[in-house]
Amino acid sequence: MSKSDHSFSDSERAGLYRAIYERRDVRSQFLPDPIPRPVLARLLKAAHHAPSVGFMQPWDFILIDSAEVRQQVLASFNEENAKAADNYTGERQQTYRSLKLQGITESPMNLCITCDRSRGGTHVLGRNSIVEMDLFSTCLAVQNLWLAARAEGIGVGWVSIIDQGELAKILNLPDNVYPLAYLCLGYVSEFADQPELEAKGWRSRLPLDELVHGNRWGVSLDDKALLGKLTK
Amino acid sequence: MSKSDHSFSDSERAGLYRAIYERRDVRSQFLPDPIPRPVLARLLKAAHHAPSVGFMQPWDFILIDSAEVRQQVLASFNEENAKAADNYTGERQQTYRSLKLQGITESPMNLCITCDRSRGGTHVLGRNSIVEMDLFSTCLAVQNLWLAARAEGIGVGWVSIIDQGELAKILNLPDNVYPLAYLCLGYVSEFADQPELEAKGWRSRLPLDELVHGNRWGVSLDDKALLGKLTK
Repeated sequence: MSKSDHSFSDSERAGLYRAIYERRDVRSQFLPDPIPRPVLARLLKAAHHAPSVGFMQPWDFILIDSAEVRQQVLASFNEENAKAADNYTGERQQTYRSLKLQGITESPMNLCITCDRSRGGTHVLGRNSIVEMDLFSTCLAVQNLWLAARAEGIGVGWVSIIDQGELAKILNLPDNVYPLAYLCLGYVSEFADQPELEAKGWRSRLPLDELVHGNRWGVSLDDKALLGKLTK
Repeated sequence: MSKSDHSFSDSERAGLYRAIYERRDVRSQFLPDPIPRPVLARLLKAAHHAPSVGFMQPWDFILIDSAEVRQQVLASFNEENAKAADNYTGERQQTYRSLKLQGITESPMNLCITCDRSRGGTHVLGRNSIVEMDLFSTCLAVQNLWLAARAEGIGVGWVSIIDQGELAKILNLPDNVYPLAYLCLGYVSEFADQPELEAKGWRSRLPLDELVHGNRWGVSLDDKALLGKLTK
């Protein structure tokens, strides 16, 4: 069988790569329009088809539209964000304070993707050596949903400035369930050309060729053909 | 501006969803054909365009084709896998032993995606509350690469049965660098219709509608229109 039998058509590949390159972390551009149920279902199904260690599928999806719950989450964000701002001084702190880092109440839907650390019992296949594989699997579900959302024209923002213990209390999570990702979802006025932190000069994209090693850490890759492709 | 302005065309969306649904964790079906450099470059660029907390980009990519390094990694796998098999008894243990759980030497390329936990300094934006956000970001890069690989007709297998400390030694990683994902990459003879663990009866896919909650954990979603779409 030819090795090329399983690759996608050019237009199918283009769709995937477009989602990868045009996906953004959205905080400021949410529109209030509700997400149609068939679209929301496609996003959740995309997440549910992520790979998971031992086919554990440790995720749950808490869809949050309650104003009361969202106000509680926003209060936790505000507390954590005030602490975070104190880590910076001078111009850097001013830039930090100018950044909008969440869209909890402006977006029409929030979604907490959780990880049930006890799912599948004591001995989940492939989780014997690295116990965090359940958390990592849940991240893969987040990325599936994030890419599917972009293709549907829906922006996603991951709110990571939040106290996980506080969030677990607000959402009534059992002890074995970890609130891995708190996401804001909604249609947007625009998807920016660049990540906001890049556009605002907070941090630059690293040159990819400097992040590639050959066989062991710190050994330059002896492959000019590949390195040349990475700098473009 | 209309909310639908930013959604993809049907064919672009189809390409993304095809990658999501037809992606597999490959262990047994690797072909020895080398991966062309332009294809490998596209995979690495896809990973590098994942979202990361504070635009931290904590990942590095160690491309491994050395037979010596791979034999060392395989030895670590074999040791961990023997321990893991002892967790099961009877028929379950027989099934476990019948599963092929890695393609370290059969695949033409191995790739370790690492997470540099010190990148970006002490105060990475958005990582103040959840210090593991750097690991989670690196997982998102893994999923971008995994989906891009599927579109290129390349299989990926994540080897999670491995001692991370041992792997860090084999790859000469500095203390601050965590070997998050050890992946096997290559063209394949087939992409199976179902995940192997599902096909072999190890574990079933969970019903998605049972994993969706409304506003708080354990509260049924009051949305029959959405729930109906999730069971199909």
